[in-house]
Amino acid sequence: MWGVICILCSFCLTAILTEAKFVDTDYKKQREELLQKEFERSLGGNLVLSEDEKTVNDILMYWKNKELDECFRNPDRFNLSKSYFTYRDYINMSNVYKIIRRMPKGGALHIHSSLMLDADGLVKLTYEDHLYCCYEGDDLKLQFSEAIPERPCTDKWSLVSDLRNASDDVIAFDNELRKHFIMYGKGDYNTSGANDSWKEFNRVYRITKSLNSYIPARKKYFYAGLKNFYEDNVMYMEIRSTAFGIFEFNSTYHSGMYLLNLYQEITENFKKDHPDFFGIKFILTSHRDLDTVLVRQNLNLTRQIKKEMPEMYAGFDLVGREDSGKTLLDRLPELAEMKNEINYYFHAGETARYGTSSDENLIDAILLGTRRIGHGYALLKHPNLLSIIQQKDIAIEVNVISNNVLSLVNDVRNHPLATYLALGLPVVLSSDDPGVWGADPLSHDFYVTFVGVASKRSDLRLLKQLAINSIKYSALDDKGKTNLFRIFNSRWSDFIQEIIQLNARGEFNSA
Amino acid sequence: MWGVICILCSFCLTAILTEAKFVDTDYKKQREELLQKEFERSLGGNLVLSEDEKTVNDILMYWKNKELDECFRNPDRFNLSKSYFTYRDYINMSNVYKIIRRMPKGGALHIHSSLMLDADGLVKLTYEDHLYCCYEGDDLKLQFSEAIPERPCTDKWSLVSDLRNASDDVIAFDNELRKHFIMYGKGDYNTSGANDSWKEFNRVYRITKSLNSYIPARKKYFYAGLKNFYEDNVMYMEIRSTAFGIFEFNSTYHSGMYLLNLYQEITENFKKDHPDFFGIKFILTSHRDLDTVLVRQNLNLTRQIKKEMPEMYAGFDLVGREDSGKTLLDRLPELAEMKNEINYYFHAGETARYGTSSDENLIDAILLGTRRIGHGYALLKHPNLLSIIQQKDIAIEVNVISNNVLSLVNDVRNHPLATYLALGLPVVLSSDDPGVWGADPLSHDFYVTFVGVASKRSDLRLLKQLAINSIKYSALDDKGKTNLFRIFNSRWSDFIQEIIQLNARGEFNSA
Ligand SMILES: [Zn+2]
Ligand SMILES: [Zn+2]
Repeated sequence: MWGVICILCSFCLTAILTEAKFVDTDYKKQREELLQKEFERSLGGNLVLSEDEKTVNDILMYWKNKELDECFRNPDRFNLSKSYFTYRDYINMSNVYKIIRRMPKGGALHIHSSLMLDADGLVKLTYEDHLYCCYEGDDLKLQFSEAIPERPCTDKWSLVSDLRNASDDVIAFDNELRKHFIMYGKGDYNTSGANDSWKEFNRVYRITKSLNSYIPARKKYFYAGLKNFYEDNVMYMEIRSTAFGIFEFNSTYHSGMYLLNLYQEITENFKKDHPDFFGIKFILTSHRDLDTVLVRQNLNLTRQIKKEMPEMYAGFDLVGREDSGKTLLDRLPELAEMKNEINYYFHAGETARYGTSSDENLIDAILLGTRRIGHGYALLKHPNLLSIIQQKDIAIEVNVISNNVLSLVNDVRNHPLATYLALGLPVVLSSDDPGVWGADPLSHDFYVTFVGVASKRSDLRLLKQLAINSIKYSALDDKGKTNLFRIFNSRWSDFIQEIIQLNARGEFNSA
Repeated sequence: MWGVICILCSFCLTAILTEAKFVDTDYKKQREELLQKEFERSLGGNLVLSEDEKTVNDILMYWKNKELDECFRNPDRFNLSKSYFTYRDYINMSNVYKIIRRMPKGGALHIHSSLMLDADGLVKLTYEDHLYCCYEGDDLKLQFSEAIPERPCTDKWSLVSDLRNASDDVIAFDNELRKHFIMYGKGDYNTSGANDSWKEFNRVYRITKSLNSYIPARKKYFYAGLKNFYEDNVMYMEIRSTAFGIFEFNSTYHSGMYLLNLYQEITENFKKDHPDFFGIKFILTSHRDLDTVLVRQNLNLTRQIKKEMPEMYAGFDLVGREDSGKTLLDRLPELAEMKNEINYYFHAGETARYGTSSDENLIDAILLGTRRIGHGYALLKHPNLLSIIQQKDIAIEVNVISNNVLSLVNDVRNHPLATYLALGLPVVLSSDDPGVWGADPLSHDFYVTFVGVASKRSDLRLLKQLAINSIKYSALDDKGKTNLFRIFNSRWSDFIQEIIQLNARGEFNSA
């Protein structure tokens, strides 16, 4: 795919190099042409901006350049080359961020329902009745229960409500609780590698699960999660979710269609309250290490969703850390059997281990006909596969902050996304599990991509194209896409006018 | 350039995907074909190994897989995903390293004379007469001088020889001295970003310069430097060097051809002592921030070298950190003027700042006709430029460990070299300034590339191709290349036999 441009450029180049006498203006002109071709090839580089969009782009680029130059001059102050945790809490000072936050973003296509809500939302859930807690060392255990939980714990179980009532300072009590709902909540985030990051990630996963696996809490959790994304100007979501492990007090464990019906019902309610929210679809997930019989059960359930809830159906995926779990190749018999009946949206290439069995999930994802690739971090080391996915127009669901906090890449400027953008590959941005690391539902991933990963020259056209891609590469049918594009275009126009007005009112001058 | 493979692969792929019924053996076959094509495209993937080479490859890959699997199982123990300083001192325990160390490596094409000698070699130089030292805080100052130096220092100047004689423990004294000649010699290497790393780098640069700018010391320094590379099985070098700043005691500063003649003389002596060393060539360097008149002076001197010492002549380069210095575009008038007379070997793209003026040095290096690109770290974000350099067969001089210690990339698995190797680009490995960070002259860079950057599947063919490239892309003329290849082939055969014999004697079993 690099061939076409190659011929064009080398033509200009030869012209320059064979010229006997150097002519400054010619050099500069050819140089500009190379830069221009590079820009046009990059994602969004061919979009044509309206006059109003150009005005907004000027505002945006003024602040982008100012903020980046400041970062280069004074890298100790605010520096996207380091861990996300070092700058997360300063992002909201950025005018670039303020603009991005207001931007309509289309869809979020790679979100796990299990970790979609932020720590503040989780703290609110601890106000529900019947929630017990117990400390085991530094580790907090939570459990919804009608009576004192039978689950063993080294300390004693107490009702959270009792402890909160007994505390002098409810705000301090909640803040203390909050620290358990977020990675490195106590501030001592480490950088000692992927194993440690995953351990901390799994700690937050477990405690969040102990809250959201109780059905009454799960209802509020899911509604609050949708609300967060909605307020971040996400208009549509494709949510990866398992169908198992939620319960009520009469020892009833629900599975199968129950949870999906619940999601559908809550989403309908949410849409009544927020008519400009477009909706959701499911990607049913199974852990990659489950017994074959359970994976088959999940695949059959996916087929059932497709049949019974076609409007909610997107497809199927396997989840869990690729480097320490079963590969797609290990699961080939069951996955291959179903590949003509089910749409796959596989995680693949979320690894730095080049040439290993986890790295090769990329090959099997493609051979199994995946519709998009989750992460695709390692794709850059497989140029032939990149050519295939470009040719087959398979989108890459990139989750930059997730890859940073889970230690795939410390300095996001080394994230392969930079090259994917330069190549104009079909990229969509998502946020994986934003609640776990305290990120905005989607705005932080847009911000880090725009300021930390993409070229300094990338502008509003990149942001707009990323939003467009999230609709174009969604699991919606043509009619759904057309409808969503109609809403998006209207929201986009409003956004452009809003930024022009805010700028006129001096909103961005205070930073 | 990705176009051709793309068509081939997608053909196989379509065949698979359109098959109605899944056939396991067919899937596996197609999968193998994708892997095979990927391997063949990668650097060295088309080399054909002899039977003896295959035997050595089996030994090499046995240990590579064993060592990598151990690292994945137990990443805290020995882990190439972290700073080079964390594992440098353990590399010599690796059997992969032991094999690489013995391998003839061809040429080292990106080496700065100012920092080519290791700390042990520098300690030896402190035994020369007339060397004064003085502490200024933690900072050690050194100066060769006939009398007490006039250079101001907060503490008093003493002769190193006096202090050493007065010390109880000469070994401890030398070890203390040694810490000043190496980055983070006191062990507390930091990871707080590029500015800090460059500051520490420049500290070592200054103290090394205070030793090697005195002519009698410089002679020994240069001879010892050649010896280190020679013992690391480097057979030929292209050395970047300035022509200024060396002195004798009668206040004579020598410049111009003097230093180059000195190098030539020492190299001739070295070759007498080591007849299988092939020789060196110069790339004359100028700091990128010098006054225009001085840059022009250096360019004229380069032309003089070309005329008067053609066998030593390679070309010209600008040095100094790209992110904080003048760009090639800033120097365009003088560089463009000379571009038909002088061969350029420009540093370019040693930056993570995508889309900035330093990043765009890549464009100007190419437009100015550079013969190779020094570092080319940022090239991966410029696919059009990558196409041009592949088409024009411009080699990339990659210095992996340098990029790690100077904070471009913390986890070398994210180094763009992985993709350059996958694309089969014309890569040569070098080591930049190995003395500063305590690396082997070249073996550590080969080791880190082979085990940390390249695919787990990459084998002896990659190593051999990298050595071959270092000759193919050298500044030698055709006759020189033919001669060097003849020597290399003979050395390579010896190496193959040596490894077979060492393995038979159980040399690699002790690890
Ligand atoms: Zn995910
Ligand atoms: Zn260099």
